[in-house]
Amino acid sequence: MTEIKCLDKGFVRLVDHMGDDSSIVQAARVSYGEGTKNVSSDRNLIRYLVRHKHTSPIEMVDFKFHCKMPIFVARQWVRHRTASINEYSARYSIIKDEFYVPEPPHIKAQDATNKQGRGEELYEQEVLNIKEWIHDHSYNSHNLYENFLKEDLARELARVVLPVNFYTEWYWKINLHNLLHFLKLRMDSHAQYEIRVYADAIYEIIKEIVPVTCEAFENYVLNAVTFSKQEFKLLIAFRSFHSWKDLLVTYESEENVIKRFKLSKRELTEFKEKLGIS
Amino acid sequence: MTEIKCLDKGFVRLVDHMGDDSSIVQAARVSYGEGTKNVSSDRNLIRYLVRHKHTSPIEMVDFKFHCKMPIFVARQWVRHRTASINEYSARYSIIKDEFYVPEPPHIKAQDATNKQGRGEELYEQEVLNIKEWIHDHSYNSHNLYENFLKEDLARELARVVLPVNFYTEWYWKINLHNLLHFLKLRMDSHAQYEIRVYADAIYEIIKEIVPVTCEAFENYVLNAVTFSKQEFKLLIAFRSFHSWKDLLVTYESEENVIKRFKLSKRELTEFKEKLGIS
Amino acid sequence: MTEIKCLDKGFVRLVDHMGDDSSIVQAARVSYGEGTKNVSSDRNLIRYLVRHKHTSPIEMVDFKFHCKMPIFVARQWVRHRTASINEYSARYSIIKDEFYVPEPPHIKAQDATNKQGRGEELYEQEVLNIKEWIHDHSYNSHNLYENFLKEDLARELARVVLPVNFYTEWYWKINLHNLLHFLKLRMDSHAQYEIRVYADAIYEIIKEIVPVTCEAFENYVLNAVTFSKQEFKLLIAFRSFHSWKDLLVTYESEENVIKRFKLSKRELTEFKEKLGIS
Amino acid sequence: MTEIKCLDKGFVRLVDHMGDDSSIVQAARVSYGEGTKNVSSDRNLIRYLVRHKHTSPIEMVDFKFHCKMPIFVARQWVRHRTASINEYSARYSIIKDEFYVPEPPHIKAQDATNKQGRGEELYEQEVLNIKEWIHDHSYNSHNLYENFLKEDLARELARVVLPVNFYTEWYWKINLHNLLHFLKLRMDSHAQYEIRVYADAIYEIIKEIVPVTCEAFENYVLNAVTFSKQEFKLLIAFRSFHSWKDLLVTYESEENVIKRFKLSKRELTEFKEKLGIS
Repeated sequence: MTEIKCLDKGFVRLVDHMGDDSSIVQAARVSYGEGTKNVSSDRNLIRYLVRHKHTSPIEMVDFKFHCKMPIFVARQWVRHRTASINEYSARYSIIKDEFYVPEPPHIKAQDATNKQGRGEELYEQEVLNIKEWIHDHSYNSHNLYENFLKEDLARELARVVLPVNFYTEWYWKINLHNLLHFLKLRMDSHAQYEIRVYADAIYEIIKEIVPVTCEAFENYVLNAVTFSKQEFKLLIAFRSFHSWKDLLVTYESEENVIKRFKLSKRELTEFKEKLGIS
Repeated sequence: MTEIKCLDKGFVRLVDHMGDDSSIVQAARVSYGEGTKNVSSDRNLIRYLVRHKHTSPIEMVDFKFHCKMPIFVARQWVRHRTASINEYSARYSIIKDEFYVPEPPHIKAQDATNKQGRGEELYEQEVLNIKEWIHDHSYNSHNLYENFLKEDLARELARVVLPVNFYTEWYWKINLHNLLHFLKLRMDSHAQYEIRVYADAIYEIIKEIVPVTCEAFENYVLNAVTFSKQEFKLLIAFRSFHSWKDLLVTYESEENVIKRFKLSKRELTEFKEKLGIS
Repeated sequence: MTEIKCLDKGFVRLVDHMGDDSSIVQAARVSYGEGTKNVSSDRNLIRYLVRHKHTSPIEMVDFKFHCKMPIFVARQWVRHRTASINEYSARYSIIKDEFYVPEPPHIKAQDATNKQGRGEELYEQEVLNIKEWIHDHSYNSHNLYENFLKEDLARELARVVLPVNFYTEWYWKINLHNLLHFLKLRMDSHAQYEIRVYADAIYEIIKEIVPVTCEAFENYVLNAVTFSKQEFKLLIAFRSFHSWKDLLVTYESEENVIKRFKLSKRELTEFKEKLGIS
Repeated sequence: MTEIKCLDKGFVRLVDHMGDDSSIVQAARVSYGEGTKNVSSDRNLIRYLVRHKHTSPIEMVDFKFHCKMPIFVARQWVRHRTASINEYSARYSIIKDEFYVPEPPHIKAQDATNKQGRGEELYEQEVLNIKEWIHDHSYNSHNLYENFLKEDLARELARVVLPVNFYTEWYWKINLHNLLHFLKLRMDSHAQYEIRVYADAIYEIIKEIVPVTCEAFENYVLNAVTFSKQEFKLLIAFRSFHSWKDLLVTYESEENVIKRFKLSKRELTEFKEKLGIS
């Protein structure tokens, strides 16, 4: 069974799956009846479905994973409500002393502008201290938990002192359509690093099973570029200019561009990022 | 592939499935960790899950069917929203002249008391007439449809003259938990005969794949008997009497029983049916 | 209560709603805590949420409609599984002789290229004939239905002869996020005309209640333009040329453009449509 | 706005709701058309719907709550996937030093037989120690968190040291049908005490708004008693005996009862509990 290690003690493991690229084609051909005979190939049919968001045939493939991840990752993950989950129960069973300690390249400062992200590097010694403190605090937390169990405190209460970096695990079953939606959000650069690791691992696993759908997903969803109504007007106007500089000469300032095209300042920044204008 | 014929031209066919009884056990053991070691057997674990409505491990099994049924059956079926569906498109493709004509034992009068059911037999000649009229009307409807297509009317409009006894088909994927809920409702004697035929066929197919879960489903769900708070009080009171007649002697009349135990008249009837009191 | 007539005998009527634009802001501010203080205004916050597909606050608004529509429209509608529905029961109650007869401008030929759409006009006389045939067939179908009822045939069986242009009605409750998804698909020019009429009516009603969200929806979703990874490369390359003609001079033919940028023929057509290149 | 305090620092507060008992009746009457005229009253109609699990009209009422609870409670709560949630973001905002410390009557030993419950009292001094340790550990955890923030560590990383007894909060919107299912599971004596407190508070709030539905819920769901097929056979057989003792005289031993009626040992215990046999 395919298994990929994630973070320091976690993993994603494919337990089972139902169907592959051909199951999508099979289901789509039921909808379209004889009508799909003239689509030249299965590959083109899948690409057509993904491009036009005809999502129901893509729901016909299912994946079941065994995953192990820190609780704070599980808390983000579980917000995707379209999956079936069987999670390890801390009421029923004892939690092992397995906790996540972030590694230096990922221990970073708060981002200055993005309120929910990491930014600059921290001093090396600071990073080492933080890592040690997280480790020691987690270790001590589990000691306290074990003491509680020795005192015969109910497991469901003893566990309340464990931090959210402790590992939990679950079986997770989801259909391909909902999985791709999950991946789009969690492989995104704005997702927290620790869940991105899991999303990347899952994507690596399913690419082996549904390669054509994954390629279409990359082309039409993951790497697609969307322009709002206002941005699109600016995009068309921009065609008349040789460069962004030239455009600015005409409009005199970015403020005028913003006003003229009814964008917010942040939207103009996003527009320029999409086109690689610096 | 397992296929069961349903009604005059329909069928249910198992296309694929993921997991069986053992997958339920496997997922449940993740939740309970080491804690399930002392459950004597897989069978007992499944029975425990079904009895106590611990439904999430039962979601871990999936079934995909190819089904063909009249539109009015599909309309009831689709109300179960927890499945994935790919249906034959009457906008895209041409509808064949396949329609449902009920057979005599099932052509019955409106039930006198149950507003949504069939009751008494009709006269034999009446039944034969009805059958013929349904056939001829359906046949003429399809002729009209074909004429519209010859006139080059858009398919999505031409089809509006087809009655709801015309056959449609779809791929239908659902997990076992949601399927059992569907079956509980649609195998019930109050479900319309025509959808019950499909529910029974599906149940016959899955019993081969998840026999232990199906047995538990029969014992704890399908054939379980539930008493409301009021009925239960009456049930306990009833223990003091040798028979229903004896109880009536004490309470003097059913009206008094109804008043004393805060039941409606219909609830008392239901109570007596449960206990086989006539 | 707001009601909009749809087709010849249908309607959409707002029965109730919970929340408006301000409820979305209120919910979002719980997620972001103090962090949203620096978003200049509620309007900008809503636009930010819609732009970045932060959909959960948009789920906090609910709408409940009473709708009446032909069965074939209801069949498309019900495929949106995220709504609650109470539909008129043809097992329980009697169906009135209310059926949809399309009006001339909408009675059109099958589209030559788009398999699921309408294309050219038909001859006027043809259109009038079709309209009359649909009317008469529907009328006769209801006569047959009534005869069946007179013979005391069970309602659930009698109704099987009614065509899918007969009207049904339901209560339909859905949250704003799921409703906008429904509207995106059903206000689209590829949706069947008859359901588009309902989607447009619903949109007109909700615009009064959530005007800011609707404006953002139009800007960032409905009128947004998306380019696939390949299209975007072509878009960037196209900037170097004064016109499409100039580009074709360099690449020599559209076939070469298709090859060079790994597009299908249909994708190139779609690309040109987006940019208004004829 | 109705607010009920829960645990030491939490609460449940009704933010908004759509509909009440009369909305359920209104929606049901659409389904049944004229057919419901002969149901004597709205109250009887609601009771009929709840008794026969005709759940769709009950979906027509919505509730939106603002809730504040410990993370370990939120983790159980979120497993109910049919609600909309906006939760306070620990990536975006700073977590206050608010944590749950259980109070003496609820600090109990692990249950000896029920693996996921609390059992006996602990020694008074032990209880006081546990309470103090939980408090101090939580306090220290927040100190460490604050130090991390002072070092400018990203918020999304700093929070990983906080235990699951820290408070989070969210907006939670759910329809009445799904809410009643949540309440059935979480008001149950097997639910963890800490989430039961919230379920009870929610129930107290909604009883004011949908009193008739809640009464029906208590009668037909919460306090209903269900017997499996095997239990029901035993129940009927039991009627022939004056007492359980008499029955045992005939069957000689409980082992024989178990064998004869195909029950497990645990099922027989459950059966006797239902009937108050000790």
